[in-house]
Amino acid sequence: MSVFKEDEVLVYEIALVFPKRGDKNEGNQGFNDAICVLVDELKKLGLFVEEIPGLAHEFIKLAAPVEALGKVAADLQIRKRTNIGMDLAFEWDQVKAFVRQADGSLFSWCERYHCYHHLLYGIVNTSKTAVSLQYDGKNFCWEPWEPLLRRLELEGILKQVFPLHDETKKKKLLKSWAFHWLDFTAQPIDDIYLYFGTKIAIYFAFLGMYTRWLLFPAALGIILRIVDFGSLQFLVLPVFFICIISWAVFFFQFWKRKNYALLARWKISYTVGTGPGYKIFGMDMNSRQHPLEFEKKLESNNVKEKEAYQRDEWLGRLKRIRNDAIVVLSIICLQLPFELAYAHLYEIIGSDIVKFGLTAVYLLIIQYFTRIGGKISADLIKNENIENKEYRADSLVYKLFGLYFMQTYIGVFYHALLHRNILTLQKVLIQRLIVSEVFENLLENSLPYFKYSYKKFRAVRYKKQHDKGSSTGKVKVTSRVEKEYLKSAYAASIGGDLEDGLFDDFLELALQFGMIMMFACAFPLTFAFAVINNIMEIRTDALKLLVIHKRPVPRAAATIGAWLNIFQFLIVMSICTNCALLVCLYDAEGKWKLEPGLAAILAIEHILLLIKFGFSRIIPEEPAWVRASRVKNATHAQDVSRELLRSISGGENKMRNVEPKE
Amino acid sequence: MSVFKEDEVLVYEIALVFPKRGDKNEGNQGFNDAICVLVDELKKLGLFVEEIPGLAHEFIKLAAPVEALGKVAADLQIRKRTNIGMDLAFEWDQVKAFVRQADGSLFSWCERYHCYHHLLYGIVNTSKTAVSLQYDGKNFCWEPWEPLLRRLELEGILKQVFPLHDETKKKKLLKSWAFHWLDFTAQPIDDIYLYFGTKIAIYFAFLGMYTRWLLFPAALGIILRIVDFGSLQFLVLPVFFICIISWAVFFFQFWKRKNYALLARWKISYTVGTGPGYKIFGMDMNSRQHPLEFEKKLESNNVKEKEAYQRDEWLGRLKRIRNDAIVVLSIICLQLPFELAYAHLYEIIGSDIVKFGLTAVYLLIIQYFTRIGGKISADLIKNENIENKEYRADSLVYKLFGLYFMQTYIGVFYHALLHRNILTLQKVLIQRLIVSEVFENLLENSLPYFKYSYKKFRAVRYKKQHDKGSSTGKVKVTSRVEKEYLKSAYAASIGGDLEDGLFDDFLELALQFGMIMMFACAFPLTFAFAVINNIMEIRTDALKLLVIHKRPVPRAAATIGAWLNIFQFLIVMSICTNCALLVCLYDAEGKWKLEPGLAAILAIEHILLLIKFGFSRIIPEEPAWVRASRVKNATHAQDVSRELLRSISGGENKMRNVEPKE
Repeated sequence: MSVFKEDEVLVYEIALVFPKRGDKNEGNQGFNDAICVLVDELKKLGLFVEEIPGLAHEFIKLAAPVEALGKVAADLQIRKRTNIGMDLAFEWDQVKAFVRQADGSLFSWCERYHCYHHLLYGIVNTSKTAVSLQYDGKNFCWEPWEPLLRRLELEGILKQVFPLHDETKKKKLLKSWAFHWLDFTAQPIDDIYLYFGTKIAIYFAFLGMYTRWLLFPAALGIILRIVDFGSLQFLVLPVFFICIISWAVFFFQFWKRKNYALLARWKISYTVGTGPGYKIFGMDMNSRQHPLEFEKKLESNNVKEKEAYQRDEWLGRLKRIRNDAIVVLSIICLQLPFELAYAHLYEIIGSDIVKFGLTAVYLLIIQYFTRIGGKISADLIKNENIENKEYRADSLVYKLFGLYFMQTYIGVFYHALLHRNILTLQKVLIQRLIVSEVFENLLENSLPYFKYSYKKFRAVRYKKQHDKGSSTGKVKVTSRVEKEYLKSAYAASIGGDLEDGLFDDFLELALQFGMIMMFACAFPLTFAFAVINNIMEIRTDALKLLVIHKRPVPRAAATIGAWLNIFQFLIVMSICTNCALLVCLYDAEGKWKLEPGLAAILAIEHILLLIKFGFSRIIPEEPAWVRASRVKNATHAQDVSRELLRSISGGENKMRNVEPKE
Repeated sequence: MSVFKEDEVLVYEIALVFPKRGDKNEGNQGFNDAICVLVDELKKLGLFVEEIPGLAHEFIKLAAPVEALGKVAADLQIRKRTNIGMDLAFEWDQVKAFVRQADGSLFSWCERYHCYHHLLYGIVNTSKTAVSLQYDGKNFCWEPWEPLLRRLELEGILKQVFPLHDETKKKKLLKSWAFHWLDFTAQPIDDIYLYFGTKIAIYFAFLGMYTRWLLFPAALGIILRIVDFGSLQFLVLPVFFICIISWAVFFFQFWKRKNYALLARWKISYTVGTGPGYKIFGMDMNSRQHPLEFEKKLESNNVKEKEAYQRDEWLGRLKRIRNDAIVVLSIICLQLPFELAYAHLYEIIGSDIVKFGLTAVYLLIIQYFTRIGGKISADLIKNENIENKEYRADSLVYKLFGLYFMQTYIGVFYHALLHRNILTLQKVLIQRLIVSEVFENLLENSLPYFKYSYKKFRAVRYKKQHDKGSSTGKVKVTSRVEKEYLKSAYAASIGGDLEDGLFDDFLELALQFGMIMMFACAFPLTFAFAVINNIMEIRTDALKLLVIHKRPVPRAAATIGAWLNIFQFLIVMSICTNCALLVCLYDAEGKWKLEPGLAAILAIEHILLLIKFGFSRIIPEEPAWVRASRVKNATHAQDVSRELLRSISGGENKMRNVEPKE
């Protein structure tokens, strides 16, 4: 049946969830049972289907042989790396021309998921009349050419489609990754890539490398603490400052190299340097829709079309600038005073109980505020008509980070700059680092567990209520698929439809990085705290992904995207804040004076440097129409390249082409 | 004979120069005349050959029908843009698949020159025995498999191979470009590209756009001079400063867009964003040698090979850093004191005559110094084993610019910062701008003309001496090819083998840009001077290229390369110098004081910002082995893509492939 029979082990990878049916199943005649119809259709597609009754839900597990996926991949014209190193549209006939994954499978998890999705939502009613369906006593019609899954979702029958964990691989990963405590930062990145896809693997590669590199400033910080440099003591902090900034600059440069190396190893086409760094063509998720759109718009270098393209580009850019201005202004005008008020109140209140109450109120309000901010940002982004989902996600990340940046650092800035008291600043830093990170780690692992327990309890209660008396003994959630369904999804705390849980993890990292870098001179020991925290973080995040959450939906982004720019911004910020800290430290008596004229000129200088290095990003270097025609060209080239594909896949297929086939 | 007969006009494009033969031609028997053999060989290659006797030299003019060039292009596997927008190795059979130039010719001037070069130096002795040749009484042997032209060069018989002007096109360009004074900055860029190749066309496009954009700050500068802003006068300069810097930042961003647009229009593959921006593969000049080298080194992701690659990369980088350090240190330790000494002596000397003498001595020494510096830099670069010629040229440009930077600005800095006298600074600026630019323009146009006249005079004298009495009347240089030979080459003043005359032209532009930007606040009117100068520059440079010099050898570089980074560096410098100028201006009485501690911290801040934005360039983002394997893959893909080419070039050829051909 398949050429790859020998190395193919069927694994159920996708689950569909339906509510539990009552006993009144055998109802109206002339109506087909929806589940039966669905299962038939799925089997027609060549999928392996297993129905599993749970306590409170019913489940359908799906597994696909490689042929079924290959057919969809060819339909979708997914671009895959071929043996000659070029990305070409997949064709099942020429399967030998395509590079396989490190574990021998033809498709990456990202591609498989994409195929599954297309397969499932591609089930339409091909007959000319509507089909009457029923489920649990509810009757409805499946119109011609309507996707069955959409209809079932609309009727509230299909509750969820989610990817399933692969138990064998999961257990292997648990052993080699989550519980592999011996080497602090070692991780099986390639296995993570195979199991979770590019984006998550890139996150863990970054986290590991960051933690390894952090050992250097951590050691430096500890040395500063222990050793007395005698008469050179006054030079110590500036030297440390210079070392830290250089360290950060080099780290991110080397990270980019690492990123390139990883993508080369995984044989992914990319453009890390230019733009946010996704695959321009050959993108897994929207490989097909993109080029067609371009082709429609841009035809044979028509000047008019080109102008329209340029107008579109500038309009979109203006909209984006307007949105950014709205976000920045509202953060400065609304959030900043609020945060300052809290910080100030906290300082002047004497009683501990009132302080506690104030903090509680503050936390409540800030939660609410963040949620509103996230909603507004997401709405604004919808205006920006960016076609690519990952670009939209990046845009959201920038806006939300602004929010969190204010939230996290304003209090610390307040201490640092207004009070000019290094000791209280150090206290605040330790407090923040320990509280926020230890508690957050606990919270992000325990909260989903409690949610899971509660859901399990509810499922058991449901079962008990419905089975009243008929069942004996203890009711338990036994099927693995139901257990996974009850686990919470790996989702972002805000902006859920564009980002997944990686947003929170990256946010945590970025805020930590800002905290340790921006106040490095005030408290060099923070780096050591960060190292310990990150070593913990690697394993707890691994555990979270493998055990606590559902298997996340794989994403195709090939770099850390917006976060790289945020880290770079934090480095520049930390140059400025540390200078201010040094001034505070060396000028303890407040004797230094700056003429207002000189101060103004220095301010102008900083603004201009910001313009030089920041604003040039506003205008993209490559005009939209050039990029469009390039992408169109590349796509066009690949469309006519079937012959090329045949020549790659080898002689056997070449022969077949010469003979008439039909 | 040719499919393109109808639109093909034969133009003699290359000339070979030989010394004039005496009358003792008919000498030894058994020796063939070298010129006759060469002409036979050239005719065998399908070239059109015309022998022209000059006054002091003999010339061979060559023209190639497109078939002859096409054959070489296929031999060289030159990568050309096909109709589907992909670059593929040229094949003569599939000529229809390839995009033509705007004027209908198949090859660009750059490609044609490359083919000519390969054709000429590919003439070897294919017989098994050496051929005895003679020229002007000199006998020598042409060994088997030895290129004939190399042997002739060695024997001193072939004096030069140079590209000829195309008189029709030249006249057209003279009218539409060099003498087109009506619209100040308009230039027929596409025609320039067709006639001179990419690099020169890009220079003129840049010069035109730069001059157009300069109109804005020039107008602003004039307004500042005329209008009195009353009580807001103290704000005028800072606002002007901010406008100028923003202007510069936006200009270069828009220039990059323009560059992309031009390359898209000329259908050139490129990577402007990453690296210095040459075509990575499909490069005209070394398309073949590159990939082979890679293939040899890097085989199937071998870890050992990868490490060797990485070691090579870092070794090369360390060497480059060492060389840069040598150059920077020698500039600071040797040139800086010298320049300062001159500036100081010039200030303290009272007598005008001594001043004049001092300047003369200075100019003499500095000429010598620059020449030595250029030689050392060129030698250093030879160590750096950069394989690409254009990268080497860039490396030279950086080093030489350091030299010229010190030379040009140190005197001005001395005035500006030590004397704190704005009026004398303004005087110095005007002096420099007018003197350097007007005189330089005159010099660079008149000097080659005088050289040409002198050479013509010598040729006539030579003729007269040899013809003693036999000729009657006035002797004149009549043949066009001899006139062109007597013209000087478009060569750089230093570093001749890596750069051509564009180095001087770009240097002039960059030094002007630095002058007007770095001292903008001291004298806003300079921008107006620069505009006038640049409008002149466009036409005089055009005239220079078309009339005064030989036609330059075309270069394939697709961007302004190293100069872009130099301009960016000058923007950052000008932020700092203008701030210093503002301090001088506003603090005329020297009342403002800066605590040494604060000054130190500010210095640290600036150093760190430099590290952040400058040093990250030292480490390339893409590891060498990734790049190598990518290039290898792409090349490999194109090597197996003959089928693809057939499918592009259309049905006719497809049919031909099915039938057995031989």
